[in-house]
Amino acid sequence: MMEINPLSTSASSSIQTFIDNKTKPVASLGKLETLAKQLALIQYQRQGTSDLNLALLPKLSLAKPSVLIFAGDHGINEENVSIAPSAVTRQMVLNFLQGGAAINCFCQVSNLKLAVIDCGIITPITESEAMLSKAEVEFIAQRIAAGTNNFSKQAAMSIAQVEQCLAYGKAIALRQIEQGSELLLLGEMGIGNTSSAAAIMSALTGLTVDVCVGRGTGITDEQLSKKTSLIEQAIARIDIDLQQQPSAQVIYRIVSELGGFEIMQMVGAILASASRQVAVVIDGFIVSVAALIAQKLDKHVTDYLVFSHVSQEKAHALLLEHIVGKGRDVALLDLQLRLGEGTGAVLCYQLLLAAIAFYNDMASFDSAGVTV
Amino acid sequence: MMEINPLSTSASSSIQTFIDNKTKPVASLGKLETLAKQLALIQYQRQGTSDLNLALLPKLSLAKPSVLIFAGDHGINEENVSIAPSAVTRQMVLNFLQGGAAINCFCQVSNLKLAVIDCGIITPITESEAMLSKAEVEFIAQRIAAGTNNFSKQAAMSIAQVEQCLAYGKAIALRQIEQGSELLLLGEMGIGNTSSAAAIMSALTGLTVDVCVGRGTGITDEQLSKKTSLIEQAIARIDIDLQQQPSAQVIYRIVSELGGFEIMQMVGAILASASRQVAVVIDGFIVSVAALIAQKLDKHVTDYLVFSHVSQEKAHALLLEHIVGKGRDVALLDLQLRLGEGTGAVLCYQLLLAAIAFYNDMASFDSAGVTV
Repeated sequence: MMEINPLSTSASSSIQTFIDNKTKPVASLGKLETLAKQLALIQYQRQGTSDLNLALLPKLSLAKPSVLIFAGDHGINEENVSIAPSAVTRQMVLNFLQGGAAINCFCQVSNLKLAVIDCGIITPITESEAMLSKAEVEFIAQRIAAGTNNFSKQAAMSIAQVEQCLAYGKAIALRQIEQGSELLLLGEMGIGNTSSAAAIMSALTGLTVDVCVGRGTGITDEQLSKKTSLIEQAIARIDIDLQQQPSAQVIYRIVSELGGFEIMQMVGAILASASRQVAVVIDGFIVSVAALIAQKLDKHVTDYLVFSHVSQEKAHALLLEHIVGKGRDVALLDLQLRLGEGTGAVLCYQLLLAAIAFYNDMASFDSAGVTV
Repeated sequence: MMEINPLSTSASSSIQTFIDNKTKPVASLGKLETLAKQLALIQYQRQGTSDLNLALLPKLSLAKPSVLIFAGDHGINEENVSIAPSAVTRQMVLNFLQGGAAINCFCQVSNLKLAVIDCGIITPITESEAMLSKAEVEFIAQRIAAGTNNFSKQAAMSIAQVEQCLAYGKAIALRQIEQGSELLLLGEMGIGNTSSAAAIMSALTGLTVDVCVGRGTGITDEQLSKKTSLIEQAIARIDIDLQQQPSAQVIYRIVSELGGFEIMQMVGAILASASRQVAVVIDGFIVSVAALIAQKLDKHVTDYLVFSHVSQEKAHALLLEHIVGKGRDVALLDLQLRLGEGTGAVLCYQLLLAAIAFYNDMASFDSAGVTV
């Protein structure tokens, strides 16, 4: 495990005073003020800035933001728990590489570069397919296997594979950070992955399966009911006691049983970013489950997370409440999205830019000669 | 009055099919899909595009977006109904011109140009002050008078001044549109203007004053109670019957009694934009009241409005519900803002860009070879 430092709040009151001196009524920028403060605390801690005073508060930056989409396939999908066959995961990966997906359009609008990571889709992307990628899209293969096992019947993966996922996820995050990235934005693609995510949510929170399960991309009542029973069955198989904060060993066991490769690589990326004091923007339900796992492994990780939106997936609001303890309000956007791919994360990126812009560039009452 | 055509929905099903063929689950982009459809209907109607078919749906554009901030002072502020003296309106106008306000920072992030319109602040901006403006900020004087009258004691302005406001507001909107602007984003500045806005909301909707009044930038309980009684007093003076849809004459009477100059200039701008089939992004409570007045003057105006956010001002959600009939969900953002200046409008601009980007550039299932 990497060491993750809790975010020191020693600079909090200096930052708050600095924000309150801006030419606006106190707190009138709402969530953007909370966000600016979080980003300031993270950056100042990363930079080791000590003895902050109002005259010298360094400007905030979010250089080289990295959008990382983790893709993987799920054995559970042979049970018909999604609207789409697993082949669509690969088709969508190709769509990302060719620039045709929603996430590509949103990255384009915000001038963001995108990397797509194959964590274990069923059929690998060929070299010639990867070479057809658009210039602004990078393809990275960090494959664990050709999809997870069907977790309704057996463990989705081995403990060794869990560890490999974490190592891969950490490696890619650290590479981005070493190349100068001051912000990671995470997204995912994996037909069937709401099943895996809902199962992990239930197992790690102790909430019943029915409140954790939703319709994903839009399954029928019948499919929903089947999805629920299969997950209940899998959790019964694991037979763990979650009365107490689970040990890393227990968490590894749970996620090895329930999958998936892309979820666990995201956990590695989140842990690594937090260990380097770099903020991570969390997308929808699946990425939030990765955040939950990371939090259970190290509670300090939460300080570094920005929750971009609350999605239409039924359990997402409840999951955010579990992670942060504040319910829906913790998320920046509520646009009734249910697409994944990192779309919510990228849509909220502009709000992060707005938060650092007002922090850096707004006049103070003194400097502007405003007398309130 | 200018003629405003209702938005034809004849292209709706073509547009919907086009959106549903994009490589994503149906409706999974939530509010962005509704937004893209509205922007498409507006643009196609403006362009007179007939006989739309899926192969030939023109790309959407939002060329030369114009951010217009209307500023004015309010006689009612001598009653101490705001946290700030009226002098702050002028100080903030100078702050806008010098680039130090929140709206400047947000415009900068989105590369938007800003114009500040003096609709009647107490002390005019001098020529030398205006010349110190930042290059990206335009200053326009369209003054009616040195602030409105104190509407708790007398009419805020004359009927002739109402008409002059509308004419000025129309003129500036039409000028932007003639220069190629395909989107207007409206904001305001005016110490005391939530009093005027709340009074107009109550008078035009028939809702009681206490549900229309809020704390603005943060007044005390005592101030809130005084603000409420002064507004009740003013409305009692007007003595109008709102049982039926009010005539233009009655509406002019109401707004002449309750003010203010910046609100009425925004009404003119909204009506003019809608008459040219150009979408208008509505900011917070004050701009929404301008939208309400415009809607009462011509109900078709609503088709052209994009509601950027629901603010912290108490009556805003209710007002949006009154205008659109759908409650909070109609607004794109809920960031707990209460600043005005067009900040919410500009913060949601990137979502409009995202909506047209996915509409224009996302692959279809066919083109991407995705088999859902």
